[in-house]
Amino acid sequence: MPSPTATLRLRMIFDSRHAIGPGKIDLLEALRDTGSITAAARTMRMSYKRAWQLIDDLNHSFAEPLVAASKGGEHGGGAELTDTGRRVLEIYRSIERKAQKSFAVELRQLTRLRARS
Amino acid sequence: MPSPTATLRLRMIFDSRHAIGPGKIDLLEALRDTGSITAAARTMRMSYKRAWQLIDDLNHSFAEPLVAASKGGEHGGGAELTDTGRRVLEIYRSIERKAQKSFAVELRQLTRLRARS
Repeated sequence: MPSPTATLRLRMIFDSRHAIGPGKIDLLEALRDTGSITAAARTMRMSYKRAWQLIDDLNHSFAEPLVAASKGGEHGGGAELTDTGRRVLEIYRSIERKAQKSFAVELRQLTRLRARS
Repeated sequence: MPSPTATLRLRMIFDSRHAIGPGKIDLLEALRDTGSITAAARTMRMSYKRAWQLIDDLNHSFAEPLVAASKGGEHGGGAELTDTGRRVLEIYRSIERKAQKSFAVELRQLTRLRARS
């Protein structure tokens, strides 16, 4: 009975206080797709406050903000990815896609060690 | 002013309840090096109970246990990696090593987006 291959999840550690992983990346993607922090938070099943904290953290992890208010106030109005935000999302997803492919053999080896013989 | 390149951390998700990441892997390595759960827990700055829980979880994530008591009781006696434990540790570290190298370009791109211009 073949098990599905393990899924690789990545986290980039910049320093002791700054890192980016699947949670923040999924949030950026939800924000790109919905155009609002409120809607992105709902998609991610997290509070607006939590989403805002993660975005604030991301905005302070890079030289330029990753997310900018697009129109109206912060709560009601829209928000969108900046060029830096789109670039970070793109680089992360590219590494993720390549990694899952590059390490398919090793991930299958791990999966085989899980299968009851 | 060049920043150091981001460090990649990996987590393998097997299913909704089973995963293996840097914490469990470092614990396995500490256990291999110290030969005891108590000493490995101390190295990892975690309680014996927490180390034991992680090991119990690992032992139930694979077909064979990854850690076995080597002599004496569970608390006082030693513990060691089984063949499966050594294999899992080896596969994980191999992926980690290769990933850091394979994605050096992308990780530098991310790092550059962090540098204040």
